[in-house]
Amino acid sequence: MKAELVYEGKAKKVYRSKSAKDQLILSYKNDATAFNGKKKASFMGKGRLNNEISARIFPYLHEHRIKSHFIERLNETEQLVYETKIIPLEVVVRNLATGSIVKRLGFEEKTPFNPPLIELFYKNDDLDDPLINDDHALLLTDITYKELNEIKAKALEINTALRELFQSINLELIDFKLEFGRLQDGMIVLSDEVSPDTCRLWDRTTSEKMDKDVFRQGIGDLVEVYEEILQRLEARS
Amino acid sequence: MKAELVYEGKAKKVYRSKSAKDQLILSYKNDATAFNGKKKASFMGKGRLNNEISARIFPYLHEHRIKSHFIERLNETEQLVYETKIIPLEVVVRNLATGSIVKRLGFEEKTPFNPPLIELFYKNDDLDDPLINDDHALLLTDITYKELNEIKAKALEINTALRELFQSINLELIDFKLEFGRLQDGMIVLSDEVSPDTCRLWDRTTSEKMDKDVFRQGIGDLVEVYEEILQRLEARS
Repeated sequence: MKAELVYEGKAKKVYRSKSAKDQLILSYKNDATAFNGKKKASFMGKGRLNNEISARIFPYLHEHRIKSHFIERLNETEQLVYETKIIPLEVVVRNLATGSIVKRLGFEEKTPFNPPLIELFYKNDDLDDPLINDDHALLLTDITYKELNEIKAKALEINTALRELFQSINLELIDFKLEFGRLQDGMIVLSDEVSPDTCRLWDRTTSEKMDKDVFRQGIGDLVEVYEEILQRLEARS
Repeated sequence: MKAELVYEGKAKKVYRSKSAKDQLILSYKNDATAFNGKKKASFMGKGRLNNEISARIFPYLHEHRIKSHFIERLNETEQLVYETKIIPLEVVVRNLATGSIVKRLGFEEKTPFNPPLIELFYKNDDLDDPLINDDHALLLTDITYKELNEIKAKALEINTALRELFQSINLELIDFKLEFGRLQDGMIVLSDEVSPDTCRLWDRTTSEKMDKDVFRQGIGDLVEVYEEILQRLEARS
């Protein structure tokens, strides 16, 4: 079903699908990277977990009228998606201050953001994914002012939907990173993945970190934690 | 006429005025700093030059309906201003890409920005004056959304007026940094200084740098260059 490798990223390989010209196969890898690639490791089972988790979150978002590139789960580590031209923006939504924003702007740890705070980063490894403002985004990408506002509104809708989902499995959604891409007809949809690699999730009872911070900070067993999230998602449905 | 020292910054000392409670005296120093204070030096005559240049630019801006804290030149190195509560924002306006934005975001040197690009930085030495977006500015300062938009509109008006002024003395305004402050009645006005310390100015004939980059890059005699700007401003009036 897979044709040639189109692209290999830090956490996924992307193949062209043999069955449809405008479809790709995302193959989740076991690699974990942090601090823009400066910390690296590989965890047996991580690819499967992120694929399975993502393959549950995208359909949940579809039910909440959030369009994405996701078509279907293919197997343990792979999913079928529509091909999109990725917009080189990382759209970060923050409900509570933690991580880089604490160091960068001096917010106190756990400062609540209400409304949630949106940050844009320019997706560019050579430049270390720098923070940008709206005017930079319009200069550095092909999106219009109207599309940028639609992306931000969509990011807040996704936040509302995801908070509800994670609360139902006793997790607090602290912040997360989204990427958007353009379908062949020009429509902008949610792309990439939504997983504990891209979301900060804290257990609502124990405050334990249940996301990639376990790896960033070396404070636990990443695979065990991701497995726990998948199990809670499975128990829910 | 001066009472106690209120504040000493990198390039100016600020004294309370004895004659009026809501007025301050800005005393321009000979010190130059760059790279958020990492490079330092002192230049005999620099304080006088920035005071004299600033004391010509503020009245020019007043004629163009740009309100500022400036009242009058007092002597060679000092000027009288209204006291303002400084908003901790550096408002940067760029007509052409050079300096930090080239390294930070990968713009090609001399890329024109049309409309001019506005960037906000959080004025905080401990954090190295980081770039911020509009939502950060609303969280980190006491300004409202409406005031932020007024500040940006004002910054663009100032750009138009200053470009005209500098073109009339054969200088191209490449970019500049503004600070705004709140008067006792709450009104926000242009504060701080407008000088070759805060503006990038290139000679329109020779493309020579006529601003603090001479010091940043160690490519000439700062005092000679600032003196030339003052002389051109004097010849104009």
